[in-house]
Amino acid sequence: KKSYKICCLPGDCIGPEIMAEGKKVLAAVGQRFGVEFVCEDALIGGAAIDACGTALPDETLDAARASDAVLLAAVGGPKWDTTDPAAPRPEQGLLKIRKELGLYTNLRPVQIFSALSGASTLKPEVIDGVDMMIVRELTGGLYFGRRERFYDEEGAGADGKPGQRAYDTLEYREYEIERIARQAFEAARKRRGKVASVDKANVLETSRMWREIVHRIHDEDYADVELEDVLVDNAAMQLINRPADFDVVVTENMFGDILSDEAAQITGSLGMLASASLGDGVALYEPSHGSAPDIAGKGIANPLAQILSVEMMLRYSFDMGEAADAIRAAVTAVLDDGLRTRDIADAGTPEENVLGTAAMGDAVVARL
Amino acid sequence: KKSYKICCLPGDCIGPEIMAEGKKVLAAVGQRFGVEFVCEDALIGGAAIDACGTALPDETLDAARASDAVLLAAVGGPKWDTTDPAAPRPEQGLLKIRKELGLYTNLRPVQIFSALSGASTLKPEVIDGVDMMIVRELTGGLYFGRRERFYDEEGAGADGKPGQRAYDTLEYREYEIERIARQAFEAARKRRGKVASVDKANVLETSRMWREIVHRIHDEDYADVELEDVLVDNAAMQLINRPADFDVVVTENMFGDILSDEAAQITGSLGMLASASLGDGVALYEPSHGSAPDIAGKGIANPLAQILSVEMMLRYSFDMGEAADAIRAAVTAVLDDGLRTRDIADAGTPEENVLGTAAMGDAVVARL
Ligand SMILES: CC(C)[C@H](C(=O)O)[C@@H](O)C(=O)O
Ligand SMILES: CC(C)[C@H](C(=O)O)[C@@H](O)C(=O)O
Repeated sequence: KKSYKICCLPGDCIGPEIMAEGKKVLAAVGQRFGVEFVCEDALIGGAAIDACGTALPDETLDAARASDAVLLAAVGGPKWDTTDPAAPRPEQGLLKIRKELGLYTNLRPVQIFSALSGASTLKPEVIDGVDMMIVRELTGGLYFGRRERFYDEEGAGADGKPGQRAYDTLEYREYEIERIARQAFEAARKRRGKVASVDKANVLETSRMWREIVHRIHDEDYADVELEDVLVDNAAMQLINRPADFDVVVTENMFGDILSDEAAQITGSLGMLASASLGDGVALYEPSHGSAPDIAGKGIANPLAQILSVEMMLRYSFDMGEAADAIRAAVTAVLDDGLRTRDIADAGTPEENVLGTAAMGDAVVARL
Repeated sequence: KKSYKICCLPGDCIGPEIMAEGKKVLAAVGQRFGVEFVCEDALIGGAAIDACGTALPDETLDAARASDAVLLAAVGGPKWDTTDPAAPRPEQGLLKIRKELGLYTNLRPVQIFSALSGASTLKPEVIDGVDMMIVRELTGGLYFGRRERFYDEEGAGADGKPGQRAYDTLEYREYEIERIARQAFEAARKRRGKVASVDKANVLETSRMWREIVHRIHDEDYADVELEDVLVDNAAMQLINRPADFDVVVTENMFGDILSDEAAQITGSLGMLASASLGDGVALYEPSHGSAPDIAGKGIANPLAQILSVEMMLRYSFDMGEAADAIRAAVTAVLDDGLRTRDIADAGTPEENVLGTAAMGDAVVARL
C-alpha cells in the first residue's frame, strides 16, 4: 500500500477548522483508493509567532521538506497586524515557505460550480462558461526584492524638510520568466490553447523584459498556443467585461495577487477556490481565501476550498486523477443537493440546508 | 470678459476626433457664461514622435506651462509599440508632462449615468448607487523610480548561465504620501466622508510607510473622516462585490492605475469617464479611456468623456461650478433622450439614435 507524508499547516483563525475537514476528506479518499496519507501538523503564521516568535520555525520548514506535499489552511489575523518593520508578521511564514521550497508557480483555477452561478455579482450571461487558470509567478518581483525604509535628512519631508523614505524593488531574472512562461504554455496545451500574458510594458522595464522573453519561449517551443499581451490595467477591465474569454492568464507576482483575487471574486464564491504552488520539489496547496478572523471559532467557515486543495494535491503531486475527480464530483453533488455553508447560502436556501464546517466536511465524505 | 488659455493635446488615434468635440463644448459654454477660452494645439505622444522624435517636445511643455489648463485626449497606438528601451514611446509624453507639471493628484470619479445603468456586466442592484472618487498618486512609485536592464554574467539565466536581469523601483517619500492623503480627506469631506486607503502593507515597506502616514494625517487633521485600510488584493475583490460602498479610494500610482480601470469597467461605460490631474500649478484633464486605435479615423468614437473632462476643468481650474453643472446636465439630457454613440448603444437602441463623434458633440452643444 502506497503511503504519503502530508505536512499540514493549519495556521490561524479559521485555519484549524477547515484543515480538519481537509484531513477528513484525505482519509476518506485514501481509504477508497487504497493509499495511506500520514498527516503531521506543523506551525506557521500567527500561531507560530505566538509559540516560537517567528512565522516559520525551522522545524516547520524541515517537516515540509521531508513531506510528499504540504497542505496549508490560512495565515494572518488582526492580533498580529503591525506596520513595525522589526515585528514578525504571519504572512512572512507564507512568503518564506514559498521561497524556501522554490514554489515559483502558483496555479489558481477560477471556475463556477453551476449550483452557485447565482452568487456572482456579475450577470449570469457574463459569467456563464468562465473557466480560467491564473498562473502567477510566486517567488520573484516586489515580494522578494530589496526593500528599505530610512530617514532622509534632505528632501523627503514637506518643503525640503527631513522625512522618511522607503522603497521596494521589482526584480526579475531571465530564467524566472522563462520557467513561468513554460508553465503557462504547458497548462494552455491541456486546456483551450490560449495564453494571455499580463504586464505593464508601457511603463516598467521588468515588463518589457517579461514580454520579450514570453514571446521568445512561445515562438521557440509553443507556437501552437495562442498568445496575447494584455496591459495590467486593461486586464483588470477585461476580467469584468469578458471573463469567459480567458483561458490561461500568466503574470508576475504582484499583478497576479491582484488579478487572481479579482478573478476569484467574479465567481462570487471565493470560499470555493483552491490553489496549488509548485516548484521543482515538494508542492503546497491552499485555499485562495484568507483566514477570515471575523468568523473564526464559530464552526461556520466553508471548508470546500480546503477540500478542493486536497483535490489539486492529488492531481498535481500524486498523479491520482481519478481520486481528484472523485472529490470534485462529491463537492459538486453536495452543492447540487442544495447543501451550503453560510457564505454560499442565499435567500432561497432552506435553513436546514445551511451546514457548519464539520457537517459540510461530513457531507462531502458521505458522497465519496 | 475673462479669458483663459487652454493648451489642447489631441495626441493619437481617436484623440483628434474627440478633442474637436471638447473644443466645441468649451466654445459653447464660454459663450453662455461670458468667458473666452483660447485653445492652442500642441503635440504629444505618437504624433509628437512622428513630428519631432520625442513624445513630449519642449515647445509642448512650454505651451502647457504658459496655459491656464491643459486638455488632453489620448496617446498611444500599435504604430509606436515597442519593447526596445532606447526607442521613444507615446506614453513617455504623458508620464513626462505629469511629472514636469507636478500633477501628483489624479482624480477619477466613477459614476453611473442612469440611462446607461444596463451597460454594466454587474447586476443592476449591485451597481445601483455607485459613486466613488478614486484618488490616485500620479508622480511617484514604480512609474518614476529607477529602472534598469542588464546582462548578468552569473546567475540570471537557467541553471546559473548568464542572462538578462531587470528591475523597477517603487519609491515614496513622506511628503508625497502626506499631500495625496490630504487630497483624499479633503475630497471625502465634500462627499460622504469616507476614505478607503489601499496598500499592500503585509508585503511592501512602502505600503507600511503609506499606512502610517495616512493614519497620522487622518488623526492630526481629519479625524472627522472615516478611514479604512484595504489590502490591494482585497480591494480588487470588494470593487466587484460591493462597489456602492466606496466613497473616496486613495492609493499609490500603480495600484491606482489598476483599480481605477477596474472601477471604471464596473460602470460598463468607460467611454463616459473623465479624469483630472492636479498639482500646485496648471492642471490637466483627460478621458479615462485610451486612444482606441481600432476605431480611429472612423468618426464613431465617443466624445463624452472628453466633454466631461471639460466639465472637470471648469470645476477644478476655473471654479465655474455652474458651467460645469450645465455640461453635466446637457450630457445627461442627451443620454436621457436616447442618443448614443456605438460603444454605449445596445440592442434596444434605434439605428437613428446611434450618432457619430461630431453629431454627439453637436447634440451636447444643442442642449447647452
Ligand atoms: C497573505 C499575502 C502575503 C498573500 C500574497 O499576497 O501573496 C496572499 O494574498 C495570497 O495571495 O496568497
Ligand atoms: C498610458 C499609461 C502610461 C497610463 C498609466 O498607466 O498611467 C494610463 O494607463 C493611465 O492610467 O493614464
